[in-house]
Amino acid sequence: MPGSTFGELFRVTNFGESHGPAIGCVIDGCPPGLALSEADIQPELDRRRPGTSRHVTQRNEPDAVEIQSGVFEGLTTGTPIALLIRNTDQRSRDYANLLDTFRPGHADYTYWRKYGHRDPRGGGRSSARLTAPMVAAGAVARKWLREQHGTTFTGWMSALGEIEIPFEDEAQIPLNPFFAANASLIPRLEAHMDALRKAGDSCGARIEVRARQVPPGLGEPLFDKLDADIAYAMMGINAVKGVEIGDGFGCVAARGSDFGDELLPTGFASNHAGGVLGGISTGQDLVVRIAIKPTSSIRTPRRSIDRAGQPTRVETHGRHDPCVGIRATPIAEAMLALVVMDHALRQRAQCGDVRLAQPAIPGQAAAEQGRAPG
Amino acid sequence: MPGSTFGELFRVTNFGESHGPAIGCVIDGCPPGLALSEADIQPELDRRRPGTSRHVTQRNEPDAVEIQSGVFEGLTTGTPIALLIRNTDQRSRDYANLLDTFRPGHADYTYWRKYGHRDPRGGGRSSARLTAPMVAAGAVARKWLREQHGTTFTGWMSALGEIEIPFEDEAQIPLNPFFAANASLIPRLEAHMDALRKAGDSCGARIEVRARQVPPGLGEPLFDKLDADIAYAMMGINAVKGVEIGDGFGCVAARGSDFGDELLPTGFASNHAGGVLGGISTGQDLVVRIAIKPTSSIRTPRRSIDRAGQPTRVETHGRHDPCVGIRATPIAEAMLALVVMDHALRQRAQCGDVRLAQPAIPGQAAAEQGRAPG
Amino acid sequence: MPGSTFGELFRVTNFGESHGPAIGCVIDGCPPGLALSEADIQPELDRRRPGTSRHVTQRNEPDAVEIQSGVFEGLTTGTPIALLIRNTDQRSRDYANLLDTFRPGHADYTYWRKYGHRDPRGGGRSSARLTAPMVAAGAVARKWLREQHGTTFTGWMSALGEIEIPFEDEAQIPLNPFFAANASLIPRLEAHMDALRKAGDSCGARIEVRARQVPPGLGEPLFDKLDADIAYAMMGINAVKGVEIGDGFGCVAARGSDFGDELLPTGFASNHAGGVLGGISTGQDLVVRIAIKPTSSIRTPRRSIDRAGQPTRVETHGRHDPCVGIRATPIAEAMLALVVMDHALRQRAQCGDVRLAQPAIPGQAAAEQGRAPG
Amino acid sequence: MPGSTFGELFRVTNFGESHGPAIGCVIDGCPPGLALSEADIQPELDRRRPGTSRHVTQRNEPDAVEIQSGVFEGLTTGTPIALLIRNTDQRSRDYANLLDTFRPGHADYTYWRKYGHRDPRGGGRSSARLTAPMVAAGAVARKWLREQHGTTFTGWMSALGEIEIPFEDEAQIPLNPFFAANASLIPRLEAHMDALRKAGDSCGARIEVRARQVPPGLGEPLFDKLDADIAYAMMGINAVKGVEIGDGFGCVAARGSDFGDELLPTGFASNHAGGVLGGISTGQDLVVRIAIKPTSSIRTPRRSIDRAGQPTRVETHGRHDPCVGIRATPIAEAMLALVVMDHALRQRAQCGDVRLAQPAIPGQAAAEQGRAPG
Repeated sequence: MPGSTFGELFRVTNFGESHGPAIGCVIDGCPPGLALSEADIQPELDRRRPGTSRHVTQRNEPDAVEIQSGVFEGLTTGTPIALLIRNTDQRSRDYANLLDTFRPGHADYTYWRKYGHRDPRGGGRSSARLTAPMVAAGAVARKWLREQHGTTFTGWMSALGEIEIPFEDEAQIPLNPFFAANASLIPRLEAHMDALRKAGDSCGARIEVRARQVPPGLGEPLFDKLDADIAYAMMGINAVKGVEIGDGFGCVAARGSDFGDELLPTGFASNHAGGVLGGISTGQDLVVRIAIKPTSSIRTPRRSIDRAGQPTRVETHGRHDPCVGIRATPIAEAMLALVVMDHALRQRAQCGDVRLAQPAIPGQAAAEQGRAPG
Repeated sequence: MPGSTFGELFRVTNFGESHGPAIGCVIDGCPPGLALSEADIQPELDRRRPGTSRHVTQRNEPDAVEIQSGVFEGLTTGTPIALLIRNTDQRSRDYANLLDTFRPGHADYTYWRKYGHRDPRGGGRSSARLTAPMVAAGAVARKWLREQHGTTFTGWMSALGEIEIPFEDEAQIPLNPFFAANASLIPRLEAHMDALRKAGDSCGARIEVRARQVPPGLGEPLFDKLDADIAYAMMGINAVKGVEIGDGFGCVAARGSDFGDELLPTGFASNHAGGVLGGISTGQDLVVRIAIKPTSSIRTPRRSIDRAGQPTRVETHGRHDPCVGIRATPIAEAMLALVVMDHALRQRAQCGDVRLAQPAIPGQAAAEQGRAPG
Repeated sequence: MPGSTFGELFRVTNFGESHGPAIGCVIDGCPPGLALSEADIQPELDRRRPGTSRHVTQRNEPDAVEIQSGVFEGLTTGTPIALLIRNTDQRSRDYANLLDTFRPGHADYTYWRKYGHRDPRGGGRSSARLTAPMVAAGAVARKWLREQHGTTFTGWMSALGEIEIPFEDEAQIPLNPFFAANASLIPRLEAHMDALRKAGDSCGARIEVRARQVPPGLGEPLFDKLDADIAYAMMGINAVKGVEIGDGFGCVAARGSDFGDELLPTGFASNHAGGVLGGISTGQDLVVRIAIKPTSSIRTPRRSIDRAGQPTRVETHGRHDPCVGIRATPIAEAMLALVVMDHALRQRAQCGDVRLAQPAIPGQAAAEQGRAPG
Repeated sequence: MPGSTFGELFRVTNFGESHGPAIGCVIDGCPPGLALSEADIQPELDRRRPGTSRHVTQRNEPDAVEIQSGVFEGLTTGTPIALLIRNTDQRSRDYANLLDTFRPGHADYTYWRKYGHRDPRGGGRSSARLTAPMVAAGAVARKWLREQHGTTFTGWMSALGEIEIPFEDEAQIPLNPFFAANASLIPRLEAHMDALRKAGDSCGARIEVRARQVPPGLGEPLFDKLDADIAYAMMGINAVKGVEIGDGFGCVAARGSDFGDELLPTGFASNHAGGVLGGISTGQDLVVRIAIKPTSSIRTPRRSIDRAGQPTRVETHGRHDPCVGIRATPIAEAMLALVVMDHALRQRAQCGDVRLAQPAIPGQAAAEQGRAPG
């Protein structure tokens, strides 16, 4: 089974290369009757778009999405929604040398070993540009989940390189280029990025994403646990090397007498589990953190070999993000939304007729039953 | 799509509950002609089995595997291999109160919200006992991979609660109940566990797993990346809250000038990436780490509610692992083997006729071409 | 993707061989809360069971089903339901010569070409015995559909060899060994079979199956049309060589002015389409017919070759059905039920919140909305 | 699981509506290194294209295919191949009345029951126009199969309404608008169609398709048998109501002493089975026949109801095929090619290392081992 389709019931099939004519995706399985136009999708693409600050790649792509199918008179029809994003600023310079050399930290070597033949222009299929269609598909999922269950998704950067970014004020997130929930640190983050760029180097980042008002009961016992599918989705984002749910690696040194979240008549007393128990959502916030490695495309020269196995040196010029983590926040939000959307439909399929005498915890009824709270 | 099947081409469908008559799995898609008997599988089950030391649950289960189909005259036929493991020591005491109360940190609440109706005996389907069939299936995958590609899988415990366990000597792993690659720390680990047990408490752990002699080229660009599928597999193991590939969260504070693994004519100069670039295996060791939360079943009383939403207290007696991480090592090895196996078949399906002029790095040819090195 | 799993949301994974220790299946995705015990399944297995009349194989198998998981206190839990049927009457005589020779009309040659290694005892995996687990799984689907939607499934034999069997009285179906809806023809059918058996020959059959009270709206536009999935299910039954929906091949010589089923305020005026338009159920009866080839295992000697390509002769002794079509009726009913069940869950997943102002045709409301009519 | 994706390893995801901006598909899983350009695909689309004779719809669509991804420097890269076909001649007149009325024999009623909301223009998603992307995808599969295994696909019309069309000369197929392998009957077929068109009526057709030089060993024992997947693919083509493999319904009245195909050292003595035994290809020609119903869009007035359940009359004007079977031949060839392609990759995945001492039948070696015969 080739890997370019994401999800089981809300299925997103992604296509395209960085420097081909277009990228895009086909969403199959979207419920009918959802009001949808390009205007619902474009704002999310604009959040991810290159060229929006000096700290990200200066490639100039409007990333304008076009709906090719699946919507009639402003409503989804339940048939596939094809989304097309044309590449407009490809600038493929001579790539002959790229075909011969493997850039350290890049997929050049592995694509060559896998396929023999590969498209080297701008990273081809391995470019982070291919996350744009996922952000677009995520916007559709987010709209449906918000309308049906009141579910929302919010991400922010919690570390840029060695700089920890405490969460202070959610309202700050859209006001700075780093998606930081913290106004006072912005000058320091900007100075850090300016120094990196000057040095021809790059750094990593840590992103946190939360989903709120998640219906309880989503996820399968084995193996398609909600947290397992989240881990799959997150580790699949370019450059991600680690995923945590709830307390994550912090659980190693914890004690059971403290870690298991107690239940009170008013709800859970804590959320060490990050909103998932036994692979199934509790109705609490989903809490996810990801580690993003430093951009591999840097000006600093590095050792490598060519296809004949001969030693060479690589330095990457061109338009690159010195920290790919900076634009990762809307991507991580979108991937989390796609996982929750898929499981919301799966839950309806198998357990659509389950009726509980009463939900034990007040306030979880609305989200579960598929109507957004007023 | 219900979630009880793992893998796309080497598919394992898991069934059973902790206290039902039997647990097991059906492996569909195993290549024909592999020599296979129960004796190939049982040793792996014995490594995971309960009751092997005083530090794990004292439930007495032989976990004897029976091959029900798919093998004829000692060779796999290519048709489904059904593996059955009978439950022999269920001791289901009165479970009426379990049905009414939600144990903190357990799946009781979420199963109830999802299904309405659930089997509470010994955790039912959410019991870690259901990892036994995966260890059995993993043994089949391991045998095929070892014979075809020389691939091997080794795991060990790298932290028990707050105690870090430095990797010193791989030969020690099978010689102690903790799967520690370190002889000198064993007394301290034993004392730690004895104190925990006496206190009626539990602790977390960190496990590391490595695959060696992995063919390069395994994994899909999007979304079924090798590392994404590993994250899915690992996060799906009971109690896992975090997954790292290579340097994992250590990449956040790293610099690109150091992180991207350089290539030399003799091979990669380092392995920060953990054996995966762009979602595809490099041929280096796969390096995976997981965080396992403290056991939720503890004697210490904790607050909870019942199905009517009324407050109550829960203390869990019975036979439980005070650190579920202790038995997790063979499970994590098995899950990693299942991911690699699945991708080995997927790679053969799509790229079975790819021929490179020459592999750039000496020594990667044998693993890739599907014959174990001599 | 190996092929031993049937269905997307109500998934049945089949395992076993004719002469292995056991056959069975795992049902994943069954809705929770369905009252289920072996007594709900066994009667369907008894209808298919060998040895019930002199016109079918005399192999003596009780086909007793055992539920291994997924049911607690008499209700399904929503987790996998494993069903086991032990083989008790294998009588594997010396099969060495079977391994070397390819019986005409059998899968011997193709299994050898595919797998190299195969289990020849009683046909191994290619035996029609493997339909027993599907009949068992179908019984679960039938119960849920009957309770939720009032849907029922009825099949009968409409031709035995060259003898057409007019549908006269549905009440006769369970009263004769042929599943014929016709009492007066039974003596002729019995004489036909007795003559065939004496001659060491076999004949084909045609079976018709109907589903009634099918919810409208089941099936996908492309490609998982309800009729496409029915064709897949039916052609997958051993020995089936043709499938028709509604008028089937009769449509070739029809005219559009007559064929398209008109709609009246009281419902459809005819059912040439067989209950499916554009791949989606209309709410009318599903009408399906299948052609079953003559049994290939006959006493009459036939020419063949051995594995070395040398000519040989084959005559098959042992216990075989002289017309495999005789036992096919409950199998075809079960496969149709599994298709409808799967699509009922799929429909709920995607369109569970679709509400029409009013259904145009009276009487279709109950079936659609998921409650059986009173 | 939504149904718009065809195949497991060579996966084609179809999107679009008859009168939307574009239709197309994404092919995921194509082996890398296949030489491919639009010129390899366009000729097949031209065979299916509307407006090529007076006997088919006069809609004027060039059906020009554009490759959007997956090909670099003329070779497939192994990543998704997106194919786009723009709709240029939509002429959506006022469709308000179409939304309210259900045309007999059409999917109008069933889409409304399923989705509530639907695109009525030109049939929307249920239009046969959506077969164009499948013909395009089929062209890719055909090229790979021809190059690797020498496999070819040929279809023809064997009946037009009540007129049987004997197979006389394969060379005639491309020389007439009916895909008839028979020159002498063409005037009669043309007169038949002219009379139908004048009468405002339509008729059915029967199509036969053959695949030659098919590798033996393709198909799974259960349930993804080669013939089951063929039945699924064929029944999924618009207007198909019946599918036969080999002798099809002719097997009902046959005897086992005649039907089972004997094997000789030079090969099979007959092909009643149509190239499949036990669900697996024998290496003989695959023989498939399908029944296509009369076009439902006719000028003759017919009774129907509207969404409020009130009686009405429908006559369909506009540009329609009076026999949709006329253009079905290249579609059926394409669908058969897609099934064979998918199973060729599946076979390589599971059994890529099976080596037989010698193939029993001369001439089957080349096709199986994946090199076209010279």
